Amino acid sequence: MYTIEELQVLFSERIDLEMNQINLTEPRNLYNPVAYALGMGGKRLRPVMVLLACNLFRKTVDNAFPAALAIEVFHNFTLLHDDIMDKAEMRRNSLSVYKKYNENIAILSGDAMSIMAYNYLLQSNSANLVEMIRLFSKTALEVCEGQQFDMDFETRTDVSIPEYLNMIRLKTAVLLACSLKIGALTADAPQKTADLLYKYGLNLGIAFQLQDDLLDVFANQDKFGKKIGGDIVSNKKTFLLLKALELADGQSKSVLQDWIFRKEFDDVEKITAITEIYNKLNIKSITEECIDEYYRSALTVLQEIDLPEVNKKELLHLGEMIMNRDH
Amino acid sequence: MYTIEELQVLFSERIDLEMNQINLTEPRNLYNPVAYALGMGGKRLRPVMVLLACNLFRKTVDNAFPAALAIEVFHNFTLLHDDIMDKAEMRRNSLSVYKKYNENIAILSGDAMSIMAYNYLLQSNSANLVEMIRLFSKTALEVCEGQQFDMDFETRTDVSIPEYLNMIRLKTAVLLACSLKIGALTADAPQKTADLLYKYGLNLGIAFQLQDDLLDVFANQDKFGKKIGGDIVSNKKTFLLLKALELADGQSKSVLQDWIFRKEFDDVEKITAITEIYNKLNIKSITEECIDEYYRSALTVLQEIDLPEVNKKELLHLGEMIMNRDH
Repeated sequence: MYTIEELQVLFSERIDLEMNQINLTEPRNLYNPVAYALGMGGKRLRPVMVLLACNLFRKTVDNAFPAALAIEVFHNFTLLHDDIMDKAEMRRNSLSVYKKYNENIAILSGDAMSIMAYNYLLQSNSANLVEMIRLFSKTALEVCEGQQFDMDFETRTDVSIPEYLNMIRLKTAVLLACSLKIGALTADAPQKTADLLYKYGLNLGIAFQLQDDLLDVFANQDKFGKKIGGDIVSNKKTFLLLKALELADGQSKSVLQDWIFRKEFDDVEKITAITEIYNKLNIKSITEECIDEYYRSALTVLQEIDLPEVNKKELLHLGEMIMNRDH
Repeated sequence: MYTIEELQVLFSERIDLEMNQINLTEPRNLYNPVAYALGMGGKRLRPVMVLLACNLFRKTVDNAFPAALAIEVFHNFTLLHDDIMDKAEMRRNSLSVYKKYNENIAILSGDAMSIMAYNYLLQSNSANLVEMIRLFSKTALEVCEGQQFDMDFETRTDVSIPEYLNMIRLKTAVLLACSLKIGALTADAPQKTADLLYKYGLNLGIAFQLQDDLLDVFANQDKFGKKIGGDIVSNKKTFLLLKALELADGQSKSVLQDWIFRKEFDDVEKITAITEIYNKLNIKSITEECIDEYYRSALTVLQEIDLPEVNKKELLHLGEMIMNRDH
């Protein structure tokens, strides 16, 4: 099997070729922003998952490139439109598409990317093509649903933990799950194994998002790409905040709610105050326990999968990488 | 065969059922705007073309409903996002989606609709399913390209007539062509006939858009839904304007360009002045001649199609309806 690092290099070379071609396609104002969005890079986690899942069953991963490109183009489409909706001017240290070009170009280029994702997928040479398209299309709609729930939560004050977990399942986890399953389908994997890979990805995805919530508050600033406390400043309904609202009593609850409703405040002061409440309520270890629960579920699913140990080791390594536990 | 009017009723009943269901789906803020957008109605021209094309080969059209819904949902998705990009506050006498809800909801609901279109298509029970998805997805990307060319033309002063014809082919004609061909594919029509239906739809579509350009200036205000002269006021690069710029000499050219570059003006005065130049240059009959050319090409294609005369009559009726020549 290829290592994850080798798959990252393979995919990176392939998408560079695609980007060059996309960049030359007319109308330029439609396709240049697409190439720009794809060029912002990142870890290429999802397409690598597609290739890895294929590689579990086949020596070569050539057959999985169209699906890997489809997933990566779709994921970058969601980031592109999310940035318009969030008015996020930066993305991975570059101007976001709508800032670099303009909002209309960003809307339309995003629209094109979501269609291009299907076109890439349609290039797959597989007996499972229709099932792959069905899975992809179902997942794509779920991601939209997750994004809408996330937006709805911004103005709601009664979000429950199960609602939150459902939101991150839709917004984040299903695409990771789909990446593994679709990769397996490109290699004609047995249905049962493909389904277990989906389940593995789903549990990992939820653990991954919960960890993202945790890192926003408790990360080591040097290692963490984003600014600490961004979610706190914006009152984002994360697992941490929802759990704190659930557990806080009397005085700490009113302090928490006071901060949430305050219109004018000093960012650092707010982050310090809310982190203090989190510490008092033991939110860090409660969240870590919840992350571990999903991570352990993923590992249990991994045990059920009928594959040689050497292959499972790469799947395990993938999980560790996603959870930043690979060092 | 069903008449076009019967197919309109059948589709209307079917999409009403879908809208009710969509309206009840969570998250409501994602799906209510989708139902609202679909409910604005219109002539349902494209889905009726899908059903009609199926009906040319099969007694029942049940098998074509998923594809008809896909095409209608996709078309309404493009209108929804176009309205954001054009800042169009009204659509068919109702508030446009972004005005009724907000821009973020309009972006995301549109994204969901483009994916829902594929999901409807995937419900088709056809041996040609993959070919149908390929055709649909190729067409969808072409529509985005057409929209971008149209936006590019707004700020360009050197648009040629062939470039313009290519733009309306992409933006308008390919979806009409795809509607007929995809309907034929749901009925396992012979490949050659399906391809000729595509060609018929393509020629009709170009004639239809040219006529839309013409009606903006020369329509009977009572019959025409929109305000006369909208394209003139906004300097839209229509066939009429491009032809006038090509034919105008000396004085009329400088008058025309003066109006185009003028920042402040009285709408009626501008419309009157430019219409006068159009009249002097005989633009109306030149445009009518071009429309007739595409319409005649469509009729020539119709003759080549191997179908009973009674079926061809419905196809002819469809063409007349599209061109408003059915009275």
